[in-house]
Formats: sequence, structure tokens, C-alpha cells
Amino acid sequence: MALVPPIEYETASPEVRTVYDDIRATRKTDWINNFWKVLANDPATLERTWTAAKEVMAPGELDALTKELVYLAVSVTNNCEYCIHSHTAAARAKGMTPAMFKELMAVVALANATNRLANGYRIDVDERFRAPLEP
Amino acid sequence: MALVPPIEYETASPEVRTVYDDIRATRKTDWINNFWKVLANDPATLERTWTAAKEVMAPGELDALTKELVYLAVSVTNNCEYCIHSHTAAARAKGMTPAMFKELMAVVALANATNRLANGYRIDVDERFRAPLEP
Amino acid sequence: MALVPPIEYETASPEVRTVYDDIRATRKTDWINNFWKVLANDPATLERTWTAAKEVMAPGELDALTKELVYLAVSVTNNCEYCIHSHTAAARAKGMTPAMFKELMAVVALANATNRLANGYRIDVDERFRAPLEP
Amino acid sequence: MALVPPIEYETASPEVRTVYDDIRATRKTDWINNFWKVLANDPATLERTWTAAKEVMAPGELDALTKELVYLAVSVTNNCEYCIHSHTAAARAKGMTPAMFKELMAVVALANATNRLANGYRIDVDERFRAPLEP
Amino acid sequence: MALVPPIEYETASPEVRTVYDDIRATRKTDWINNFWKVLANDPATLERTWTAAKEVMAPGELDALTKELVYLAVSVTNNCEYCIHSHTAAARAKGMTPAMFKELMAVVALANATNRLANGYRIDVDERFRAPLEP
Amino acid sequence: MALVPPIEYETASPEVRTVYDDIRATRKTDWINNFWKVLANDPATLERTWTAAKEVMAPGELDALTKELVYLAVSVTNNCEYCIHSHTAAARAKGMTPAMFKELMAVVALANATNRLANGYRIDVDERFRAPLEP
Repeated sequence: MALVPPIEYETASPEVRTVYDDIRATRKTDWINNFWKVLANDPATLERTWTAAKEVMAPGELDALTKELVYLAVSVTNNCEYCIHSHTAAARAKGMTPAMFKELMAVVALANATNRLANGYRIDVDERFRAPLEP
Repeated sequence: MALVPPIEYETASPEVRTVYDDIRATRKTDWINNFWKVLANDPATLERTWTAAKEVMAPGELDALTKELVYLAVSVTNNCEYCIHSHTAAARAKGMTPAMFKELMAVVALANATNRLANGYRIDVDERFRAPLEP
Repeated sequence: MALVPPIEYETASPEVRTVYDDIRATRKTDWINNFWKVLANDPATLERTWTAAKEVMAPGELDALTKELVYLAVSVTNNCEYCIHSHTAAARAKGMTPAMFKELMAVVALANATNRLANGYRIDVDERFRAPLEP
Repeated sequence: MALVPPIEYETASPEVRTVYDDIRATRKTDWINNFWKVLANDPATLERTWTAAKEVMAPGELDALTKELVYLAVSVTNNCEYCIHSHTAAARAKGMTPAMFKELMAVVALANATNRLANGYRIDVDERFRAPLEP
Repeated sequence: MALVPPIEYETASPEVRTVYDDIRATRKTDWINNFWKVLANDPATLERTWTAAKEVMAPGELDALTKELVYLAVSVTNNCEYCIHSHTAAARAKGMTPAMFKELMAVVALANATNRLANGYRIDVDERFRAPLEP
Repeated sequence: MALVPPIEYETASPEVRTVYDDIRATRKTDWINNFWKVLANDPATLERTWTAAKEVMAPGELDALTKELVYLAVSVTNNCEYCIHSHTAAARAKGMTPAMFKELMAVVALANATNRLANGYRIDVDERFRAPLEP
């Protein structure tokens, strides 16, 4: 059980309801998951986190599915159980097939392995990899 | 300086050369980066890691660029300097624009933050998120 | 269930009892939590860990509550379920209000995010930040 | 060298200047550190991150120094070199003495050790630790 | 419940059965643990991971027990519940006594603590530690 | 440069010298590495950490080399540059050959990969793996 109770819409303060309304409108569903209902105990963090998530996860240079896959990859690396479940569901809703999930896990596993080979051997960064991203 | 010296093609054993040749052919470039040249000190690990990377990073259900973005996201989360540089370069070569890199960093930051909110508040996984991926 | 069973006072060896007695006296309670009862399977580690905890967590330049908040922040970052629960309780006992807990989580989330922005962009440390702590 | 160049005030866009102006006003100094100057390459992330930092790090239920100590503890746990340097400086500016820094490091080390003892032995959370934070 | 169902031998495809047969023959037991049965949903990853595990964990310059202890130490550091349980069992089967497990936990805790002391104080690597491993 | 300066024997306080003397006697060398010289700025932490290290790393149920290998594996997983260098040197001094180092890196890489596969797929712990370590 979470350290603070989830707050339902019915008993929420106006400022929390404003966020819930936006979550519902953005996602086109009445359902609100526990993450937001627990964060609602701290309205400032709820509002800031939702606004950031809405902004960052919206399609831009990267499409919405790619962003969900990246989110899931980070959550698996950090072993956040809640986030793995919620972002697997979110990625599913945005088009991730089971086959894509499996390939994603394979990439995450590979990266976690090679990260340690590079760090363990203390491999020097090749000069040409140091080029800045922009001229 | 790496804990063991990079091995150049010219002085490599036949089994290492076979891997180098495959790296060159697959990537259509003569250049081999330090990661492989250092791993070449352990030919079995070189061969196994290269084969895994070639297999896992090839386009499949996910395209090659998406895989590089995921790889980079994991490397940033783990703070592997070598891997951040090498996979930024790899992603660039596969089409990542600077704008995409910036969005990627924003997603990685957000996920690392919310992972801790979910874990810190001990938020319960919603029942409907527990549905298996496949029927 | 823990990999080794918790050891109760009644069946503990004299050396373990000495630690238990000190825990009870220091905390002014007869109750001993599972962490120590499981560590009691390795009396040397029990003794060393308790002594370190007693020394390090005692008020000094930092007060006892600040130390508990830091402990909790680390445990959330590492996702140690046991430690999050036990140090939330410990911080509560030392004066952490629910409002403080929520602010703490917000700081932990922010730090985990910005840590990745700094590492991902490979931001150079500003010269003036490198000044040693002491002259 | 960072993957994208720091952006100076003189060459910044109006929206970036607005953030820089707020950083300068809030901190009562003209100097802006690399973190913000590099993030300025992504004005949306700059604005969102600065606003979050300003909000979260402001004194509230926890004072500003305690928040900096927590930030530093997380940064040490994650090994973010930039953040360790910048938040050591920030904590210094808010009153952290060298003696406080040393105690902080001792708490961080202890927590990282005991997190692994609890996880490694798979210690069960004591029932009484599961009480919610609020009634 | 895992995100994809474990696949039993009876319903497995021929390529999965080939891996299962090799697991059984190598381990001299008919029993196959969930890790492989879940990975079987992605036959390529199953095959690659099993082949790597078989190769890497076989006795070589390091004996099989030492390798299991290292595996367990990494899993505790990362807090992988499944891996802690499965590699505790594997290490037991290869001769790890309860006393050895306890010493292992003590080393893992110490290393996690001192890693943060070294990173937090930003301690410079001593020149003589930088000598390459091989002449 | 470390955040606090290393303290040399000549200028050390009597309590620090006592630890330095013990380090020298235990290791049979006059040389003291930066880790201890920096920690000497906090004599209580120096003394506690050295005593713990001496106790924990001494041969017991596990021999001294195995312990160093475990230490190194944890340090690679956490990416502690100082610790990787210092414990590679320590392991070398206790008999680690370059071939053993390479096998160690391969085990560390494998464990970091499979940790994420187990966590990402949310694989259930097999019942028989839950047996306690001791009857």
C-alpha cells in the first residue's frame, strides 16, 4: 500500500481536479491511474509532473511510441516496477506489439552489459566520437 | 588509458581479424572503434558481444534508429561515458537530429524522476496494468 | 521471506544480545526490527553495521532528522523497499511531517532527472565549481 | 566538451534570455553556470527544468540547505560528476561547512551499504513500518 | 505474473526445445526455471542468452563458484529479486555455504559504501593504479 | 582534484597516524593511497572504514582474492572509476591474472544484462528458489 492514500476525483481539491480533468481530456478516458492519484497528495508536484509529462511525451521530433519505448527502457534499467507496468500499458496503447517489447528488452539487456564492459575496461572515448552534435 | 591496450588489425590473431572483418563489412567502413579493439584482448567476449550487437541492433520490429535511441537512453541512465559518445555517434549516423537528441534527453530525465516518485511513494500497480502482454 | 531467519532475543547468542541490548537502550524501545534480527545471522556484520549506524546517524554537524532524510533519499534512489519503509518510519519518529516527506520526494525526483541531463549532455564542470571545500 | 555548445546571454534567443534573467534575479548574481547554458539549446527543457528547480529547491517545509544536502546525496549515489561539484558549491553557499559535507558523505556511504544488505538478504518489511504516512 | 507466460517444454517450438534440451543436459536436471521459460517467448534472445551464460559461467580462469558469487554480488547491487534468488540457489548448488553468503553480503555492502566515498569526495586515481593490466 | 586535500603522514594528527600505521603494517608497505589520505579529513570515517575494510576483506570463508574480485565487480557495476583502478591493482596483488580479469568482466556484463531481462519481463521467482539458505 502506498505511503499516502490515492485521492479520488470526488474528494479532490479544485486544483487537483483541474489536473485530473486535463489528464482525462488529454487521454480521452475517465480513468486515472494510481500514480497521479497518489501524487495528488502533493498538488504542486502533481501539477508540475503532469505538465512535464504532457509536454515531454507529446509527439515532436520523436513520435509518441518511440518516447514510450525509451521511458520503458529507463524504467527497466532502474527496476521501477510501477513504471514498467504502466509504461508497458502506455506503449501498448500507442502501438507496441509483443514482438517490439521483446526486441526492446534485448536492446536494454545488451546496453546494460556493454555499459559495464566499457566502464570496467576503462575504454577511452575515440577522438572522432567527441565531435559535438551541432556545428 | 584502458586497462588493456587496443589491438590493431595488423597485430590481431586470425579469430579477432574475422570479427574485425565482419565489423568492417557490416558497417561499410574500415574504421574500428576502441570498444572492439579493447575487447579483442578477450576474443571470446569480442566475438560473443559483436554477434549479439549485430543481431540485436539490426532492424526488426523496431527500426535501427529507435534501437540506438534506446541504447543511448540506457547509457545516459547508467552514466557510461564511452557508450554515450559512441551511441550518440551511431544514432547520428542513423538519422538522429540534434532536435531528436534533445527530446530524448528530456524523456530520459522525466523517466528517471518519475521512477523515483513511484518507488518512493511505494505506489501500487493498478490492476489493469497487470494484464499480460499477450493473451 | 528473508534468505535467513530473523533471530529473536531469546535464542540469540551473548554477542548478539549485547548488540540488541544496545539497540534497545539507544532507541529506548524493546522492539527490534527485522533488519537487525536478520543481520544477527552474521554477528560480525551485525556489530559492525550497528556501530556504524549509531555513530553516523547520531546528531553532529547535521541533526538527526536531516540525516534520516538523506538516508531516505538514497534509499529511494536505489529503490530499497525495506529501507524506504524503515527510514520513513525513523524520519517520522524524528519529526518528519507528511509535508516534509512530499518535498523530499520532489527533490529526489528533480536530482535524478538533472543528474541525467548533466551526464547525457556531457556538461563540463565550471571552473569555479572545482574549488576545494577547504582552503 | 559538452555535446552541444553552451549558449551565452549575448547570443541567446529572447525566451532563453527570459530564463537567464530569472536565474540571475533569483540567485542575485550575473553568473550563469554551464548546466543552464547547455540546456539552453533546448529552450523548452531549459524553461521547464529551471522552473521546477526554482519551485522545488525553494525553502518550504524543508529549508534550502537541507534540500541541497539531499540533492548532493542523490548525485553522489548516482555518480554525477557535474552535479556533485555544482551542488557542493550550492550547499556551501547556503551554509554547508566542510564538517557537514563529511558527515553527509558518511550517511550516503552507510545508506548505500545497508540498502544492499536489506536487498541481498531479502529482509521482510516489518508490519509496523507499513503504516501509511497519514491517517 | 510475468508480462508474458512461461512456455513449457510440451508446447515449445523445436528451436526452443533445442535450448531446453541443452539446459537440461548441461545442468543434469529436467527442471527448467522461469527465467528461460519466459525468455522462450523470444527464441532468439533465449538462444543467445543461454549460449552466453553457458560460455561465460563455465569454469575457466575463474572457477564456477567464484563466478556465481560475482553474479550474485552484481544482482544484489542492482536489486534484481529474481536473480538474487536464482543465483543464491545456483551458488548453493556449487558449494556456497551460508557462511560464505554472509561474507559475500558484507563485501557487497562495503564496496557500495566506499564506491560513494570515492565518488563523493572526487578522489583522484593514484598514478600507480593506472598501470595497464598487461605489459 | 578531490574536494578536500589528501593528508600526508607527516602532517597527520595522532589518531590519523594510528590508522596509517595500521594500513602500512597490514599491507606491508609504506605507501598509502589517496582513498585513505582523503578520508583522513574525517578521522572518524577513516577509522571506521579502514576497520571495516580490514575485517571484511580479510580471508575467511572466502579467500582474499575472491573478495577483491567481488569488490571489483560491484565497482564496475556502479562505475566508480577510483575503485575500479584501486581494486584492479589490489586483485592483481592477490593473484588476479589478466585472463581472470577478462572473465570477470564477462560475468559482470552478463549479470547486468540478465538482471534487466528478469526485471523487465517481471519474471516470477520459482518456488524452489525461495528456500531459505539455512534449515
